[in-house]
Amino acid sequence: MQAFLEEAKKSSRTIANLSTAVKNKVLNEMADALMNHCDFIISHNEKDMSEARLNNLGEALLDRLLLTGDRVKDMANAIRQIASQAEPVGRILDGWVTKDGLNIQKVSIPIGVIGIIYESRPNVTSDTAALCFKSGNVCVLKGGKEAEHSNKAIAMVLREVLTKNRLPEQAISLLPDSSREGVAKLIKQDKYVDLIVPRGGEALIRFVSENSSIPVIKHDKGICHIYIDKDAAAAKIIDIVINAKCQRPSACNSIETLLIHEDIAPYIINGLEDAFLEMGTILKGCAETLKYIKVIPATLEDFDTEYLANILNIKIVKNIDEAITHIQRHGSGHSESILSENYTTVNKFLSEVDAACVYANASTRFTDGGAFGLGAEVGISTNKLHSRGPMGINDLTTFKYKVYGSGQIRN
Amino acid sequence: MQAFLEEAKKSSRTIANLSTAVKNKVLNEMADALMNHCDFIISHNEKDMSEARLNNLGEALLDRLLLTGDRVKDMANAIRQIASQAEPVGRILDGWVTKDGLNIQKVSIPIGVIGIIYESRPNVTSDTAALCFKSGNVCVLKGGKEAEHSNKAIAMVLREVLTKNRLPEQAISLLPDSSREGVAKLIKQDKYVDLIVPRGGEALIRFVSENSSIPVIKHDKGICHIYIDKDAAAAKIIDIVINAKCQRPSACNSIETLLIHEDIAPYIINGLEDAFLEMGTILKGCAETLKYIKVIPATLEDFDTEYLANILNIKIVKNIDEAITHIQRHGSGHSESILSENYTTVNKFLSEVDAACVYANASTRFTDGGAFGLGAEVGISTNKLHSRGPMGINDLTTFKYKVYGSGQIRN
Repeated sequence: MQAFLEEAKKSSRTIANLSTAVKNKVLNEMADALMNHCDFIISHNEKDMSEARLNNLGEALLDRLLLTGDRVKDMANAIRQIASQAEPVGRILDGWVTKDGLNIQKVSIPIGVIGIIYESRPNVTSDTAALCFKSGNVCVLKGGKEAEHSNKAIAMVLREVLTKNRLPEQAISLLPDSSREGVAKLIKQDKYVDLIVPRGGEALIRFVSENSSIPVIKHDKGICHIYIDKDAAAAKIIDIVINAKCQRPSACNSIETLLIHEDIAPYIINGLEDAFLEMGTILKGCAETLKYIKVIPATLEDFDTEYLANILNIKIVKNIDEAITHIQRHGSGHSESILSENYTTVNKFLSEVDAACVYANASTRFTDGGAFGLGAEVGISTNKLHSRGPMGINDLTTFKYKVYGSGQIRN
Repeated sequence: MQAFLEEAKKSSRTIANLSTAVKNKVLNEMADALMNHCDFIISHNEKDMSEARLNNLGEALLDRLLLTGDRVKDMANAIRQIASQAEPVGRILDGWVTKDGLNIQKVSIPIGVIGIIYESRPNVTSDTAALCFKSGNVCVLKGGKEAEHSNKAIAMVLREVLTKNRLPEQAISLLPDSSREGVAKLIKQDKYVDLIVPRGGEALIRFVSENSSIPVIKHDKGICHIYIDKDAAAAKIIDIVINAKCQRPSACNSIETLLIHEDIAPYIINGLEDAFLEMGTILKGCAETLKYIKVIPATLEDFDTEYLANILNIKIVKNIDEAITHIQRHGSGHSESILSENYTTVNKFLSEVDAACVYANASTRFTDGGAFGLGAEVGISTNKLHSRGPMGINDLTTFKYKVYGSGQIRN
């Protein structure tokens, strides 16, 4: 493992200093290579698929694992799109001249070696490799066991392009030991790896956060809320809350709980119930809610649960302060929204709620790299530092200070 | 511990949302309070001093521990200076409108609760408390055992000002259990603490990095180099390298090793030896160096040692690539400098060397919040992410996205 990571680290100096032109040429060749080796990739994917069927994986998982000609084409197109993004390295983030006449530039640079731990979908392998390469980083990928053949085939195709361009193939590495022990070893190698990005279940993320000696950017759960203020515009309410809950209940940016100001509740709650029932949503309510509509009583635990399903808690609150306090206690700092036409109330909510994305009068479903306009997405960070919320390619860079002197010494 | 930290966390919502005017008023009152309670603080410091003498602490440590009227005045002035810095919270870091018409603002916000672990000098208590307060953060301070009475007295004076202003005194907290076990517990409380900043010996920093489940910003060692290129301007060399080594050898931004291009070595090495001997510097040299001057042979270990003393390694290299490779292997990513008048060589060095601060034709001693023009310094981060190099008050903030909508739902 150490020798392997040392090689990865060594190659990072070459990759970090490639020109935009070279990086884009290589990425477009990678896209071509995926298309040219489509059959090769699909034949390896078939091995994963038949093993998965033997292991009785569910239909949803099988579908996530499956590669088809169209899906390989999508992977190739995603790489071309990443190639077309603006160069993330070498941006001048800040700059000034000191009283001693030193000219200081704060410049974006690649992070170095990034370890990424993820599950099932094989397209993550090519997306992530391309995002890391475009941002001048070396990646060490640890995909899911169930996609092992597919991931190896994809990596092999991408690495061949690196070799053909006389670039170190270690720049796209698959972790040789893909067991849990392999992960446990990887996250202690702070000498060689600069960042770990775990994407997956809560247990994996907890394990990595608690045991890593390398900085971790988590993609943790989203317990999200919409607060309907007493001054909400009636015409907007139902569309927004239905979208935030029902458009894709399995997404982390879908809401778990609707908080409703007690003054407006009597006027809207029956309409809300009808709209959600039509969408097949299972509703749970606080004691106050149960006075208006007959739904399942919500337990305290319900308010701390990320449903990832078409289930919604409703809670009636006395005022915005109770709403914010509820969010701070039960929210996961992901995405929170207020519906209100009151200027002061909206500003209070946006200022006081501590979450990656705080919305006024919009669905929480917009927390997403694409919807934010950041281009291809690395993920959605639930970290509070370095990167927060939708992670674009710029989040795969850090910075250094370049200091241009002319003989200065310190007094 | 948990109840204590829960209180700290709770108070962070109040502190995060204070106006600049209130924060500055409170800070200036804190400065006044330190002056008014100078005798009280000094009397508690005397307890620490007599215990330290009983424990036979060295003269240097005793001096670091000592508080005098002048030093308390300096502490007060430091707080006033922090009050006068530009507001770090609420800066709009970026902003755009998405294709759906969402108005997105990336806004700086306080980090939340910051645990700071430090040693001996009691002024760190007031400096750090003020920096955290100005940036809207709650601090949990864990000072050195040897300064316990002084730290308690200083914190008491500062907290009294909070109470008088009806602010939660938990905003400036001292860790109740200041033992190693207390630290071990603190760094696992990721539910309440958002960031840990350890400042101290290597063992402490290693322990914290390896065991913390909270993000850590390290203030680790500096193994720094100056590379004298064959195209260095002869007139600048001696002043810069003497400054970088001898002005304050105990500083982390002082150099450990001088790398000299083999073409220029014969012309400058005797002059360098004379200049360093005059400064009392102990010189060690590589085999090539020993051909020119009689100094102690440098071992491989010497190149990995942060001396914090007036000792210098000299190594002669074939070219800039050997210099960069040496720096990448032995440097700690802190501060690295090249002396050269060659445009291409300078650019290559500044681009390829991966360190927080890379210099051309200047002393590495400028890596410092004050010298960088960042104002009062939190420390010098040897992290690669979130904060790197001299940490100013802005580094005590993170960000969130405020998204202003007008009824948008996602398609």
